[in-house]
Amino acid sequence: MITFGVIGYGYWGPNLVRNLAEAKEARVVAVSDLRPERRALVERRYPGVRTTADAREIATAPDIDAVVIATPVSTHFELALAALQAGKHVLVEKPMTQTVEQGLRLIEAAEKAGRVLMVDHTFIYTGAVRKLGELVRSGDLGEIYYYDSARVNLGLFQHDVDVLWDLAVHDLSIMDYLIEAEPVAVSANGISHVPGRPENLAYLTLFYDCNTISHINVNWLAPVKVRRTLIGGSRKMVVYDDLEPSEKIKVYDKGITVTDNGNGSQESIYEMLIGYRTGDMWCPKLDGHEALAVEIDHFIHCVGTGARPVTDGTLGLRVVRQLEAASRSMRERGRPVELARS
Amino acid sequence: MITFGVIGYGYWGPNLVRNLAEAKEARVVAVSDLRPERRALVERRYPGVRTTADAREIATAPDIDAVVIATPVSTHFELALAALQAGKHVLVEKPMTQTVEQGLRLIEAAEKAGRVLMVDHTFIYTGAVRKLGELVRSGDLGEIYYYDSARVNLGLFQHDVDVLWDLAVHDLSIMDYLIEAEPVAVSANGISHVPGRPENLAYLTLFYDCNTISHINVNWLAPVKVRRTLIGGSRKMVVYDDLEPSEKIKVYDKGITVTDNGNGSQESIYEMLIGYRTGDMWCPKLDGHEALAVEIDHFIHCVGTGARPVTDGTLGLRVVRQLEAASRSMRERGRPVELARS
Amino acid sequence: MITFGVIGYGYWGPNLVRNLAEAKEARVVAVSDLRPERRALVERRYPGVRTTADAREIATAPDIDAVVIATPVSTHFELALAALQAGKHVLVEKPMTQTVEQGLRLIEAAEKAGRVLMVDHTFIYTGAVRKLGELVRSGDLGEIYYYDSARVNLGLFQHDVDVLWDLAVHDLSIMDYLIEAEPVAVSANGISHVPGRPENLAYLTLFYDCNTISHINVNWLAPVKVRRTLIGGSRKMVVYDDLEPSEKIKVYDKGITVTDNGNGSQESIYEMLIGYRTGDMWCPKLDGHEALAVEIDHFIHCVGTGARPVTDGTLGLRVVRQLEAASRSMRERGRPVELARS
Amino acid sequence: MITFGVIGYGYWGPNLVRNLAEAKEARVVAVSDLRPERRALVERRYPGVRTTADAREIATAPDIDAVVIATPVSTHFELALAALQAGKHVLVEKPMTQTVEQGLRLIEAAEKAGRVLMVDHTFIYTGAVRKLGELVRSGDLGEIYYYDSARVNLGLFQHDVDVLWDLAVHDLSIMDYLIEAEPVAVSANGISHVPGRPENLAYLTLFYDCNTISHINVNWLAPVKVRRTLIGGSRKMVVYDDLEPSEKIKVYDKGITVTDNGNGSQESIYEMLIGYRTGDMWCPKLDGHEALAVEIDHFIHCVGTGARPVTDGTLGLRVVRQLEAASRSMRERGRPVELARS
Repeated sequence: MITFGVIGYGYWGPNLVRNLAEAKEARVVAVSDLRPERRALVERRYPGVRTTADAREIATAPDIDAVVIATPVSTHFELALAALQAGKHVLVEKPMTQTVEQGLRLIEAAEKAGRVLMVDHTFIYTGAVRKLGELVRSGDLGEIYYYDSARVNLGLFQHDVDVLWDLAVHDLSIMDYLIEAEPVAVSANGISHVPGRPENLAYLTLFYDCNTISHINVNWLAPVKVRRTLIGGSRKMVVYDDLEPSEKIKVYDKGITVTDNGNGSQESIYEMLIGYRTGDMWCPKLDGHEALAVEIDHFIHCVGTGARPVTDGTLGLRVVRQLEAASRSMRERGRPVELARS
Repeated sequence: MITFGVIGYGYWGPNLVRNLAEAKEARVVAVSDLRPERRALVERRYPGVRTTADAREIATAPDIDAVVIATPVSTHFELALAALQAGKHVLVEKPMTQTVEQGLRLIEAAEKAGRVLMVDHTFIYTGAVRKLGELVRSGDLGEIYYYDSARVNLGLFQHDVDVLWDLAVHDLSIMDYLIEAEPVAVSANGISHVPGRPENLAYLTLFYDCNTISHINVNWLAPVKVRRTLIGGSRKMVVYDDLEPSEKIKVYDKGITVTDNGNGSQESIYEMLIGYRTGDMWCPKLDGHEALAVEIDHFIHCVGTGARPVTDGTLGLRVVRQLEAASRSMRERGRPVELARS
Repeated sequence: MITFGVIGYGYWGPNLVRNLAEAKEARVVAVSDLRPERRALVERRYPGVRTTADAREIATAPDIDAVVIATPVSTHFELALAALQAGKHVLVEKPMTQTVEQGLRLIEAAEKAGRVLMVDHTFIYTGAVRKLGELVRSGDLGEIYYYDSARVNLGLFQHDVDVLWDLAVHDLSIMDYLIEAEPVAVSANGISHVPGRPENLAYLTLFYDCNTISHINVNWLAPVKVRRTLIGGSRKMVVYDDLEPSEKIKVYDKGITVTDNGNGSQESIYEMLIGYRTGDMWCPKLDGHEALAVEIDHFIHCVGTGARPVTDGTLGLRVVRQLEAASRSMRERGRPVELARS
Repeated sequence: MITFGVIGYGYWGPNLVRNLAEAKEARVVAVSDLRPERRALVERRYPGVRTTADAREIATAPDIDAVVIATPVSTHFELALAALQAGKHVLVEKPMTQTVEQGLRLIEAAEKAGRVLMVDHTFIYTGAVRKLGELVRSGDLGEIYYYDSARVNLGLFQHDVDVLWDLAVHDLSIMDYLIEAEPVAVSANGISHVPGRPENLAYLTLFYDCNTISHINVNWLAPVKVRRTLIGGSRKMVVYDDLEPSEKIKVYDKGITVTDNGNGSQESIYEMLIGYRTGDMWCPKLDGHEALAVEIDHFIHCVGTGARPVTDGTLGLRVVRQLEAASRSMRERGRPVELARS
């Protein structure tokens, strides 16, 4: 049995506490939130759980093994560091930190303390993304040609982060999970339609040292909700539509065939013939378990066995590095920014 | 009655000839194509029309008033120039030319000859785009915040031009028609998945000196066909889905409201409150006439009256300028390229 | 403040209790359920509410003003009768009773006791159906030509009632609410694919003494979920798709025009010319309040003022009468069954 | 080489002539139509083909081997009979005849003449329906539980036949092709919204001596176009949506499992437990050849070899028998009408 403290009971915190409360090997000991009405809500729902306004009390409480941090991103670093230094395991909301520098220090702190540092990139634990992982790793899709995602809707303009840090963060984690290669450069652009606010609409391209390219289209000011990703492979192609109630993943046996025209000349590369393949389409059944429950079980497993989480600090750091570079590129209208290798 | 010669009877030529044959004030006199089997097809379908393998014969024939050029883009300039210099009116396929330089010379030649130069940006003449024009110009949408288009499908890899010149060209003409402001810079990136071939997938962003941004996503290697544009305005927003059989345009009475929190402080700009508006959705009925027929009537009208075509050479040139800049940016991974003012 | 007792805490009971708990003028005093684990759930969620296994205790408790009955349909009559006779107001699940005879007796008991008898036909209180009601009553749709509904999915085979009593009951209440005329006869057919079980798939047609017809297609064994109703009017037509997240109601300015060919002959009726009209489509914004909350407010209002509920016992009775006739018709492969006038 | 005469060059005739003109073993010799402008159209399109106003000339011309009849249904019998008696092979539009009596006489005439009698139930030759046939015959779907079709749109009110004879005829032929069992009774109802005109909206149920039921919903006065069929099998279920551009057939690995609860009692049949199965979904690639071309090749093959057409006169007769019975039932508000065995 692992004892948990949860910092932050706002939008996402209640989902974390609910899933922790239902997890077999977990027990929620304490929850903190600055707002009295949120603490009162915890008390009503979970009579045995202690509440506090003081996040640091949770981060250091002797009866707590693991700390879950669900606060604004600007506070992640300080709270996670305090918890790790107090010998706690840490599960922190995404994005892990505001800067690469902070991320590196958290990883270091976790290693020094010998504790688990995991980032709550929830999408990685959905049935859909896990199935995509299987498809990629089995070789069914062939070489990955592109990952192209649109994640747009009306609402939830954030104060503190731009739309890349709010929405593209999901795709960056999914791409990190799916694509073996690491991006080498990024080009991004975007715009803010509200004076003084961060960008509410942005486009992000990632370049690789191979035949792959990734693109993310995120927008808080769209008339319709879209959550759709196309993944093109050399053998098959996928449409992943997260709004579909059950057929979220469609695998198309489609693609091109490239054949030399056989004249063996120097220029033959310019004369390759392109054909088009079209076959069946297939929607695999997906695991329907709540992603957060799967994720928390995984965290508990890692805490218990010392295994490395799928969404560990290094994945979280790669995502932060890409966001940091994207924000820089966005300020310069898409000027490409190189990514340091991790 | 205006007499027409058509150069090129390949993919698009038959549509041009068919619509010219049915237009009241037009008569097709001659058609040229290099391939004997295409000429034979013309002869079978239009017994009275003369055919030739020699495009220049069409461009200069004394019995021809207007020349329509539906050949590969690399031949547009030379053929259009010859026709204009021979005193013909010209309707040329899009993109108008391969370079800005060529485009400028065509415009000059048309002015010198006092002849109509029109570019076949067919989309501008569809019921859908004309309705979008009405919506924008009536002020119904308010200020245009963004134009965001996806135009992807599997097929028709071109040999001579990349996917921007093949597909983004449509959106660039539509945007030119809809958005009053002219773009000032462009950032593009893309990739080719077939060695030696032009890019088959590309992303293009256009920047303006105002609150507007445009983005185009084009792809020849997608598992599904998508032809969808979101247009965000300060008052209303539009989804334009060209694959919908009848409800191509959906106008959403949605948006945000920005209110000062009223404390009058220096920082108040950072504290603006954002609210979300949601109202009715509305699909206007669209004119169902074939766009090409509308366009040819417009060309005939311009020839007859000397009126300036909606898609005249200057529009065609702006599109070529944007494509040229985009291709340059794409070679440098999205480095922004400034656009000279027209 | 009206005090409530709720009988039955199974599938729907929790929604009733939750909405009663949140309603301003209501207070839940007691909940009964035969199953100890369901009672325990109530106790955990609502510490102050008393629980009991004895439904009749609720029906007659002196501290309870109104009784809500959310038990299997076979028990509705007895429990509702007991509650009315004990002077309680009653809100009973749909269908109100198993037979017309029982329904008549409940209405009589309510009148005798001077208490409100309301049936929980929740759909009537949704934003979508209320908007449909406005559209019909404003005359916007013109004369109602047909109501054609499909309500199919995989799941929830019932033990005690056939698919008509489980699913068609929704449409019958909606039709009663929308269509001014009362049906005069019914023809139904269906089949059971599980030996010994009630029909899991059925089709139901209602006839009227006017230009209207209604049809309902219900199915527990369908591969996809469909909740779609077409309503044809002489002026406009509607598609009501309850699975659409926001655009549930689409109003089409479409229809036919019938014109005499003007020759004044005897046979001219056979020579009427039919034209087709197509105009804009429009999706009105719908009230997004939870239907059950709206309904409970309405019940409380009726209890307080003596107003007649929209879904009162007579509406509930008409629905039961139609179901009873439909079941009879279904046993005889669609033989039409006349409906007595209410 | 088989020589063809085509009677009727209205809505469908041009498709027949075009496909005959392109078929390898066919040659169109003559086309008849009462209207001079339609004959002129033939002459323009097919210079070598002779035209006539006299259908009987075609039916008996010595240089014609096979006659195709594409005229209103009221003329089918007389024309087909004349052609068969003149020793011609006959391909007749659906429905084959106006009455069962007429259909029997045509079959008899064909047998006597030793000629092929085939009905143009085109849908049977589509890639989609042929794939459905494979799925059913391979046993993949298991026992067929139901066939449930909606075929609605706005337009094309017919003068001479009701909506069942116009639209349900498609489903009746598809069902005949797919379902091994023959229906034993029919219940239908419908309504006409235009005085003096045949029913423009109808519902039709077919009963079988087994676990199967069929239902057809047809409507000329619907705001949207729907062409969707659900087919429920004991092992798998299918959605066949003819409006989908490429994914017309979706095969769902879904269904129910019925298990005895094992207590062996008399009543155990009432206590069977129902479970729900959900697995992958699969869209098979379909043959994209034009159905009419496939059908004409099949007709030519049958003429050449004496093989029995898939859509021979007996299939055509079963469809007419079902339509006749349905119209009778429709006049009596769904009273079931027994079908004589063929």
